[in-house]
Amino acid sequence: MKVHNFSAGPAILPASVMAEAAEAVRDFNGSGLSILEISHRSKGFVAVLDEAVSLVRELLGLSDDYAVLFLSGGASSQFFMSAMNLLNEDETAGYINTGAWSTKAIKEAKLFGEVKELASSKDTNFSYIPKGYAIPEDLKYVHITSNNTIFGTQFQEFPETKLPLVADMSSDIFSRPLPIDRFGIIYAGAQKNMGPAGVTLAIVRKDLLGKVNRAIPSMLKYQTHIDKDSSFNTPPVFPIYVSMLTLRWVKAQGGVEAMVPRNEAKAKLIYDEIDRNPMFKGVVTDAADRSRMNATFVLQDQYAELEQAFLAAAAAANCDGVKGHRSVGGFRASIYNSMELESVQALVDVMKAFAAKHA
Amino acid sequence: MKVHNFSAGPAILPASVMAEAAEAVRDFNGSGLSILEISHRSKGFVAVLDEAVSLVRELLGLSDDYAVLFLSGGASSQFFMSAMNLLNEDETAGYINTGAWSTKAIKEAKLFGEVKELASSKDTNFSYIPKGYAIPEDLKYVHITSNNTIFGTQFQEFPETKLPLVADMSSDIFSRPLPIDRFGIIYAGAQKNMGPAGVTLAIVRKDLLGKVNRAIPSMLKYQTHIDKDSSFNTPPVFPIYVSMLTLRWVKAQGGVEAMVPRNEAKAKLIYDEIDRNPMFKGVVTDAADRSRMNATFVLQDQYAELEQAFLAAAAAANCDGVKGHRSVGGFRASIYNSMELESVQALVDVMKAFAAKHA
Repeated sequence: MKVHNFSAGPAILPASVMAEAAEAVRDFNGSGLSILEISHRSKGFVAVLDEAVSLVRELLGLSDDYAVLFLSGGASSQFFMSAMNLLNEDETAGYINTGAWSTKAIKEAKLFGEVKELASSKDTNFSYIPKGYAIPEDLKYVHITSNNTIFGTQFQEFPETKLPLVADMSSDIFSRPLPIDRFGIIYAGAQKNMGPAGVTLAIVRKDLLGKVNRAIPSMLKYQTHIDKDSSFNTPPVFPIYVSMLTLRWVKAQGGVEAMVPRNEAKAKLIYDEIDRNPMFKGVVTDAADRSRMNATFVLQDQYAELEQAFLAAAAAANCDGVKGHRSVGGFRASIYNSMELESVQALVDVMKAFAAKHA
Repeated sequence: MKVHNFSAGPAILPASVMAEAAEAVRDFNGSGLSILEISHRSKGFVAVLDEAVSLVRELLGLSDDYAVLFLSGGASSQFFMSAMNLLNEDETAGYINTGAWSTKAIKEAKLFGEVKELASSKDTNFSYIPKGYAIPEDLKYVHITSNNTIFGTQFQEFPETKLPLVADMSSDIFSRPLPIDRFGIIYAGAQKNMGPAGVTLAIVRKDLLGKVNRAIPSMLKYQTHIDKDSSFNTPPVFPIYVSMLTLRWVKAQGGVEAMVPRNEAKAKLIYDEIDRNPMFKGVVTDAADRSRMNATFVLQDQYAELEQAFLAAAAAANCDGVKGHRSVGGFRASIYNSMELESVQALVDVMKAFAAKHA
């Protein structure tokens, strides 16, 4: 019986990708060798890496002004690496604080320069995306977390500024077209919308580099990885391979443009039920900020003691990973690119049946 | 027809590990989900990580004085991270330079403190392991590369000192028992003897930490990963899983003690042929320093023009990855733990046949 994987990350990948990946672990391209045991300098893997870079460029419409890097260390390493590479000690960067990930990015950036928190939704436990704040023109960059997996908020419009945006897009990369020229750096841990855990995409506007005066270890300089095509050291071969397969899948579906109606249909299905069902309510206070990737919801107060019962009902219907993050509670349905509408329908059916029984 | 994989890394893994890994990509433990799409906080993966840590402890006989970490960024990140975490700016560490990897480790460490090169074999393009050098007692630690994949040298005895050794063991970890109390840090990129590319083992003596006075980003502090059991951020799930399977395999063979005769038999087979065969000669000038992991050899001068012909003969016999590193030339047979004697025999047969035809 099919398991519906609502995990926030590592998360669902297309079934066809999983099948191809399993075969490559057994025998990569009929070579008689596993993808796990081939050199990162072999023709076979170099072709994989080249195709992955090309797919990122094509899907997001990147000009040659941008480098595409496959790194390791997760978005958590990009929190400090972006500041380390862009910000001098006497310079200031602006950060929009929309939750746990932004808060961590701010903490790490403070080791390298001045940080100005331009806006925050901390007052309501990050239940909305701040709007209407001023952005000084003398900042080095403006950092955002485009989608917050924990609270279920998402920037539907990006901040209006001529400054380069630095964006953590770990949980919504490749879910929609981007006004790419407004971004200086986009980074994303693979394990939500791009691939398995163990590789991090970094898209870097090259002219922003080389302007800080600190000594940086080779592995922490974007320029090192640009100069060596992400192979300065042994890259995470298999996570890159699976990411490439997933990017191929996105392209075959019609690209990021095709992800928009696909993701909107799933989001509409789950949010309509959250709003209709008398037992539930959404966590995000401004409906316009609701994430198309992670729908967060809780039981209405009078039903609060039924949380475990709902999780059990979801589990009984093979809906996995529905428990909300501990800092929000309740439930979270992560409905990334590769999730099918039928899986969201399965969860909605559980919600309907639960209300029929308990409301 | 079986391919004999002599690649220096990413490298051969046991056939049974590959089969289990492929199945887990399809369906992990009968869960209905792939190992690629499960949460790193799920019971299933937490059990994998716990078992991997336990296996490292058991195989190497580690006391509680040591933490076992699964990180990312490769040994190349440990080059700077070890110095960043151990060495203050006004302190000095000693380094033994046995080739390209040591040279890189020295370069990165210099960003954080004083580096004294205690010995080097650069004079002969790193064809031996230096001996007979003095080690001052006032150093913070002594760094070595236990096995050099490029030049085919290996420390058979570790430097005599009361200082903690910091060792890059990327290419010979788990190939032999270690006098573990003499080490402060052992680090190893997985992709030679432990697993696929994308995860790095770090074994850290905990009392060495917390003694530097610089600000360190959270992700670059060993203490962060100790406090969070290697799950401060999303770890590289699949590379850790495959490493765990490989460690299980080492244990099932009889542990690192059983790897010694296994690896010596393979090394004897290839080195005896290198020494016997009139067409070849070994690269390492002191036979005592020959690596049990990477046998490097070249054609005798009078046959030098036959290099491509030998590579073609090896390829025809399904011996893959035999070409030597560009900085040494000639040939390299990497014969890590999981390589079977029959594969080494296949290469030796090629060498014999080549001599019968050309010598």
